Amino acid sequence: MIKIICVGKIKEKFYREAIEEYKKRLSKYTKIEIIELKDEDKGSILEKERDSILSKIDKKDYIITLQIEGNNISSSEMATKIENIFITNPNITFIIGGSYGLHDDIKNLSNYKLSFSKMTFPHQLFRVILLEQIYRSFKINNNELYHK
Amino acid sequence: MIKIICVGKIKEKFYREAIEEYKKRLSKYTKIEIIELKDEDKGSILEKERDSILSKIDKKDYIITLQIEGNNISSSEMATKIENIFITNPNITFIIGGSYGLHDDIKNLSNYKLSFSKMTFPHQLFRVILLEQIYRSFKINNNELYHK
Repeated sequence: MIKIICVGKIKEKFYREAIEEYKKRLSKYTKIEIIELKDEDKGSILEKERDSILSKIDKKDYIITLQIEGNNISSSEMATKIENIFITNPNITFIIGGSYGLHDDIKNLSNYKLSFSKMTFPHQLFRVILLEQIYRSFKINNNELYHK
Repeated sequence: MIKIICVGKIKEKFYREAIEEYKKRLSKYTKIEIIELKDEDKGSILEKERDSILSKIDKKDYIITLQIEGNNISSSEMATKIENIFITNPNITFIIGGSYGLHDDIKNLSNYKLSFSKMTFPHQLFRVILLEQIYRSFKINNNELYHK
């Protein structure tokens, strides 16, 4: 099963629709759950977001954090990584931070730090990018044709 | 002025809406034109697409090709790059290939080869990603706040 823990609401209708579409496509291959947490806007933002993320993490899962300074891998390397994780663990949890990133306590729990780009994307768009790439991984692992 | 030459139709409604939204936001800062070319599906695909791209290129423009093997830069580096180009050239043309990439003749015309990621994205999603990042560049160059 794939879980995505993420911070912040999707405000744009087109992004919500894109996310729903990839969730639907992915459901052919795996159970998928998106856990959307409230983004904080005052006080110790990172600490508050850390606490709400921690309350949702199952530490038995394989945890992949999305961090700009993480590993850059290709789509086929990501597919292989996901395939290999599922040999030993039935659940992968991806964690995407909010506008202020992730607290170090969350980064320290991570089994693998993943980066898609040196560029910064808005969290709404990034959720689409991640879902598409997970979907692509399953297509690759099932030897199915997938047009760019 | 920003021109984007790209190959292939945007089929998904949510991607068309996302593209329209970023075009609208960008129009506050610059003239923007998206030149969408037909993707070929048989015969010498790359050569045909090369010819239609060539017919749209103005060689006086500063040409940036999007290639997976291009330079990886951060959002602020991209903003600086765009700012610097506009000092000497009023027009930047970005070129995004179709499912089969770009012909070498197009790559050879390029003034700068840009890569967003080692990962492969679908061309529909990639057009959104590029537009968002150009928009982000203008926000950065205008010292405007832009939430992630």
